[in-house]
Amino acid sequence: MSEFDLIEKYFNWRNLNSNNLGVGDDCALISIDTHQQIATSVDTLIEGVHFPKGTSASDIAHKALAVNLSDLAAMGATPKYFTLALTLPEFDESWLQDFSSTLRVLANQYQIVLVGGDTTKGVLSMTLNVSGTINQGKALLRSAAQAGDRIFVSNRIGDAALAWRQIQQKLTPSDQLLQRFNRPDPRVALGQALVGVANACIDISDGLEQDLGHILKRSNVGARIDLSQLPLGQEVQSYIQKTQDWCVALAGGDDYELCFSVAPENLKKLTKIEKNLKIKLKEIGVITQNQGIEKVGDFDKKCSSYQHF
Amino acid sequence: MSEFDLIEKYFNWRNLNSNNLGVGDDCALISIDTHQQIATSVDTLIEGVHFPKGTSASDIAHKALAVNLSDLAAMGATPKYFTLALTLPEFDESWLQDFSSTLRVLANQYQIVLVGGDTTKGVLSMTLNVSGTINQGKALLRSAAQAGDRIFVSNRIGDAALAWRQIQQKLTPSDQLLQRFNRPDPRVALGQALVGVANACIDISDGLEQDLGHILKRSNVGARIDLSQLPLGQEVQSYIQKTQDWCVALAGGDDYELCFSVAPENLKKLTKIEKNLKIKLKEIGVITQNQGIEKVGDFDKKCSSYQHF
Repeated sequence: MSEFDLIEKYFNWRNLNSNNLGVGDDCALISIDTHQQIATSVDTLIEGVHFPKGTSASDIAHKALAVNLSDLAAMGATPKYFTLALTLPEFDESWLQDFSSTLRVLANQYQIVLVGGDTTKGVLSMTLNVSGTINQGKALLRSAAQAGDRIFVSNRIGDAALAWRQIQQKLTPSDQLLQRFNRPDPRVALGQALVGVANACIDISDGLEQDLGHILKRSNVGARIDLSQLPLGQEVQSYIQKTQDWCVALAGGDDYELCFSVAPENLKKLTKIEKNLKIKLKEIGVITQNQGIEKVGDFDKKCSSYQHF
Repeated sequence: MSEFDLIEKYFNWRNLNSNNLGVGDDCALISIDTHQQIATSVDTLIEGVHFPKGTSASDIAHKALAVNLSDLAAMGATPKYFTLALTLPEFDESWLQDFSSTLRVLANQYQIVLVGGDTTKGVLSMTLNVSGTINQGKALLRSAAQAGDRIFVSNRIGDAALAWRQIQQKLTPSDQLLQRFNRPDPRVALGQALVGVANACIDISDGLEQDLGHILKRSNVGARIDLSQLPLGQEVQSYIQKTQDWCVALAGGDDYELCFSVAPENLKKLTKIEKNLKIKLKEIGVITQNQGIEKVGDFDKKCSSYQHF
C-alpha cells in the first residue's frame, strides 16, 4: 500500500474537515480569527520509551494525542488542528484501523482536526504537532507566577508512575492505574477555565517537582509545598506508606494534570470551576520569594525526574 | 544532559525569536495577520530511509528543513515558524553543534523561526512541522490544473536520484550530484512568485511522474509530457543515454523542484519570474482532458516510484 492510499483510507476524515482544513495537498490551510494567537506544541512518542512494547494501538493513539492536547491545556488554548507523523515497522491493517479509530474518537471529543501527516517505515513512533487558539495575550505562561500565589494540582498525581513501576517489575497494575497510565485525560476545559484566573500554569508530564521547577525558574520565584497535601489515589497512598517512595508522586511523570498558581484574590473563582467541571483542585503549597522548592513533610531525598538523555 | 539543557543550549535562538514566538513554554504562541491563512506541513526523515547512514549532521539538518520548506514553496506560502522533534541514539555534542548551526543558517536564510521542539532517545530521525502564511484563498493547490495549461518544471530533475543510485552501488557521486542530493534548495521565492500566475503546483519529492499524478488526480485531468523536454543535467543525460533508465528523472524523487501548470495567457509572466529569480523554468508538456500521463518519446516502461510501505 502506498503512503497515499494509507492516508486516504485511515486518516482522511472528510466529515471532520470543515472549511479550508484538510489532508491532501502539500500543506493544510487554516484560518484564524483576528484577535487570536496560535499556540503550538510538538511531542514524540517512541515504543519502549514512552509506552511499553505490546501497548495496544488504541492506547497508543489515545496517549499520543492526549499528551499533546495536555500542552494546549496548560496554555489555556482551544484545540484546533494537528499533524501526525507516523513511523511503523510494517503495514498492519488492523493496527492502523484501531489506531486511527481511537485517534478519531479523541479528536472528535476535543474538536481538533487532523490536517496533515507523513508515514514512514521504521521503529514504531509518532510525532504529533498540535495547534490551538487563544485570545491575544491571554495564554497561561510558565513565567507568570507571583510570590504569594497558591499552588494547585488538578485531580491527583502518581497513578501513572506507579503503574509504570509495576510494569517494570513485571507486576500487573490495577485497571484503574493502567487507565491513568494509558489513557490520560488532557485538562483542556480546565486550562480554558483558568484563563484570567490562574497566573502560571504547566502540565505535569515529567513529574511535579521538575515541572513546577520550570514555573519557578521562568517566574524567578520559589515554592513551599506540603507533602501531606499532595492529591494521591488510594493505591499511591498505600504504596508510599509502605515504601516511603514519595518520588512516585513528585517525579514519576506521566500525570498530565495541571499545576498552576493562583493569586489569593482569585481563590474563590476556583470553587466555581471545580463545581462546573466536576474536577478536584488541590492546594499543595505557596509561591515564595526564595529560590527552589522547599518540601514540608517527612521527606528530604532527591528524586531523579525523567531525563530525556 | 537533560532535554531542557539541550534545548536551551542548541535550539533556543533568542535573537531569532521576535515578539511572541519562542521556545520555552508548553506551547509557542504565534500571531497571524487577518487576511492570511496558515499553511502547515510535516515531514519525517529517518536514517537509512531518507538519508544514508554516515550523512553529516550538517547535511541532515539542511535536508530536513529544506524538504519541509519545499512543501511551503509548493503552496506559494511564506515560511514563518517550525517545530522540531529530534530523536538521537545518544547525546553527541559535536553532532548537535553541527546540526543546530546548519539548521540555523537555513532558517535565517528563509526567515523561519524555530518555536518548539521535543528531543527523545532512539533511532536517528526527525520530524519537522513547518508553517507559513499565504493570503486568504491564494494558495497554489494541486486541484487547480485546467486542460490546456502548460506544465513546467523548475531548474532540473534527476540529479539527486542519480546520486542515490550511485551511493547504493557503492560508487562516489560527483560533488555536484551530492550537493543536489544532500542540500536541496527549496523553491520558496519561486512558489511565492507563482501565486496568481500558476494554476496547480506541487513539489517533486517522490518523482515527477508520481507527483504530477497527484495534480492530475486532484484536478481530474490528464497530461502529455515530452521526454525530450525534461530539464536534465549533464550527468543525468549521459546516464540515460547509456542506460535508457528514464526512471531516474521520472521517478527518482528527492528533486525538490516545483512542477506547476500555467494557463497560456500567463506564460509571458514566467519570463519575468525566470529573470528576477535567476531560475530556469522548463515547459515539459500540457494538461489534457484525458486521464493519466501520456509520455511522448522513446520510453514506455513503468517506473516504480518511491513507496513509503
